[in-house]
Amino acid sequence: MLLGPEARSLRHLIEQGPDRWREVRERALAAGDRLPLAECKPLLPVAPRDYVDFYASLEHATNVGRMFRPDAPLEPNWRRLPVGYHGRAASVIVSGTPVVRPRGQLGEGEFGPTRALDYECELGLVTDVHARIFGVVLLNDWSARDIQAWEYRPLGPFLGKAFATSISPWIVPLEDIPAAPAREQDPPPLPYLADEPGHALDVELEVAVNGEVLTRTNARGLYWTPAQMLAHVTAAGAPLTAGDLFGTGTISGTEPGNEGCLLERFGGERWLEDGDEVVLRSPNLGECAGRVMPAR
Amino acid sequence: MLLGPEARSLRHLIEQGPDRWREVRERALAAGDRLPLAECKPLLPVAPRDYVDFYASLEHATNVGRMFRPDAPLEPNWRRLPVGYHGRAASVIVSGTPVVRPRGQLGEGEFGPTRALDYECELGLVTDVHARIFGVVLLNDWSARDIQAWEYRPLGPFLGKAFATSISPWIVPLEDIPAAPAREQDPPPLPYLADEPGHALDVELEVAVNGEVLTRTNARGLYWTPAQMLAHVTAAGAPLTAGDLFGTGTISGTEPGNEGCLLERFGGERWLEDGDEVVLRSPNLGECAGRVMPAR
Repeated sequence: MLLGPEARSLRHLIEQGPDRWREVRERALAAGDRLPLAECKPLLPVAPRDYVDFYASLEHATNVGRMFRPDAPLEPNWRRLPVGYHGRAASVIVSGTPVVRPRGQLGEGEFGPTRALDYECELGLVTDVHARIFGVVLLNDWSARDIQAWEYRPLGPFLGKAFATSISPWIVPLEDIPAAPAREQDPPPLPYLADEPGHALDVELEVAVNGEVLTRTNARGLYWTPAQMLAHVTAAGAPLTAGDLFGTGTISGTEPGNEGCLLERFGGERWLEDGDEVVLRSPNLGECAGRVMPAR
Repeated sequence: MLLGPEARSLRHLIEQGPDRWREVRERALAAGDRLPLAECKPLLPVAPRDYVDFYASLEHATNVGRMFRPDAPLEPNWRRLPVGYHGRAASVIVSGTPVVRPRGQLGEGEFGPTRALDYECELGLVTDVHARIFGVVLLNDWSARDIQAWEYRPLGPFLGKAFATSISPWIVPLEDIPAAPAREQDPPPLPYLADEPGHALDVELEVAVNGEVLTRTNARGLYWTPAQMLAHVTAAGAPLTAGDLFGTGTISGTEPGNEGCLLERFGGERWLEDGDEVVLRSPNLGECAGRVMPAR
C-alpha cells in the first residue's frame, strides 16, 4: 500500500500523528479504485526542514573507512552510537529529477567537474516531531568522492554531497514494511539506545545503472536499527519538525555484489558518466531514478 | 540602521533582490520616527532553509586543531578552501530564547548532560538564492565539547551543535557594515575564490558571561572573506534558498583575550554553568543573548 502526496506536501498529515496516519491508510486500503500510476506526476512528497544522514552499515563503514583511513577503518565511536551528520535539506529532490554533475575542488590546486560521481543506496525515514516514523522512502545520496575526500577533514562531508539527494515519491507507511530481527550488537549499547528485541527493516534493494544491476542488498543487515538512530537524536534534544528526513547511510552487505555504492563495488575503478541513469528499486518501495547531466 | 522583521519572516523581502533591499533601507532611513525598541518583541527574522557553518578563522582553527589533533592542527585543505559543514536549521533561535543544556554521549560508555558547554562568537550572513548578502547578524553556535569530541569522527559535528544556534533579531544590511582590507592569503587561492581586493567585515565583537567580558575580537581578522565563503558554495551547485544562513565560524584573534570560545580561552578549565547568561555584543549589530537552563 502506497501513500502519495495528497497535496503539495504531506507535512499537514504528518503533524496529525500516528492515529490519524493509520486512519488515512485504512481508508485508502478499503477504497476500491485508484488513480492509474501512468496518470500521476511524481512530486516531492515533503520538503524536509532538516535532513540527517547516518552511517549505520557496518560493512559500508568498514569498506569505506579502510580506503580513507587504512590504519583505523572503524573509529572507536562507531559501535557505541549511530554516527551521523546533517546534509543539505534543499538538495532533496524527487525521483526523476536530473542530477547535474557538480564542480568543486578535486584535490590540492584543482577545480572542476567531479571525476568520481557515485550513488549511495539508502532508505530514508520520514518522521514527525517526536521522531515517530511516518513512512519510508528509497534514497540516493549522490556523492562526488574526489570533492568529499579533499574537503571532509575535520568537519565532515559538505559540498561533495550537497548537490542532490533523490528520494522516491511514495512514502510507504511503516506498517507496510516487513520487519526482521535486528542484528546482534557488540558491545551492547547504552540504555538510551536499548532496542530489545530490535526490529530491522526487511527491504530488498537493487541499484541498476543503465539497466545493469550493480548492487543487490537488504536493509535488514544494517547494524543500527531505525529506532536506535531516532532515539539517539531525540535524547540529545535536537529540535525536530514534521517531515524531517533521516537517511540510513549506504546499505552494504557481506557478499560481493552487496556493496551499496560504486566506491566499494569497484574500488575507484568505475564512476558514473554523463547520461547514466541510476535506478534504485525495491519490491516494497517502488523506484528512485535519476539521470546524470553534464556539468554546467 | 537596523531592519527588523516586517512580518513573521523577511523571506519575501529577501526574494526580491538587492535593488528592492536598497529601496526599503533608504525609505526606512528617510522616515523620521521609529517604534521605541522597548515596544518591540524580537522574533526570529527568518527561518533558514539551510544553515552552513564555516571555520574561517586561522587562529580558531589552529587553537582548536591543536587540542583535537596535536600532530596536525591545521588540515592540508584549510588554506585551500573555506572548510564548512551543515548545521541543524531547526536549531536556529532568536536572541533571548533560553538554551537547555543538552544530553548525549560524553565519551565511551557514558550518557548524560554535557559537562563542557561552550559559546562560539560568530557572524551570520543571510543570503538570497544567488548567495548575495542580504545582511549580517550576531550568531552564537552553542557547543557541547564532550559530545562533539566523541561523535565527530569521521562525519563532523552533529548533536554536539544541534540543540541551539542563537542569532540577533536585527538583520543589518551589508551597506551598514564597515569594510576592511582582507588579510593576505598564502598560498593564493584558486581563481574561483579570487577576491582582489578582498573585503573583510570590520565588526568589533565582545562576549560577556553574567556581565564579565571574556572575549573581545573583530571579524576583520578572519582568513576567508564572506565573498569567498559564498563563492565556494555557489561554484559547487549547492541549491540555495532566500534566507539561507551562513556562519563564519568562531572568530578568534592573535592576542590573549581574543579567543572566541571558552575552549580556547580557558583550555578546558572553565565551561558554562546552569543559569549563566551569555551575551554577544557589537556596536554594529546589537546583542545576541541566551541563558543556560538545566538539562531536562
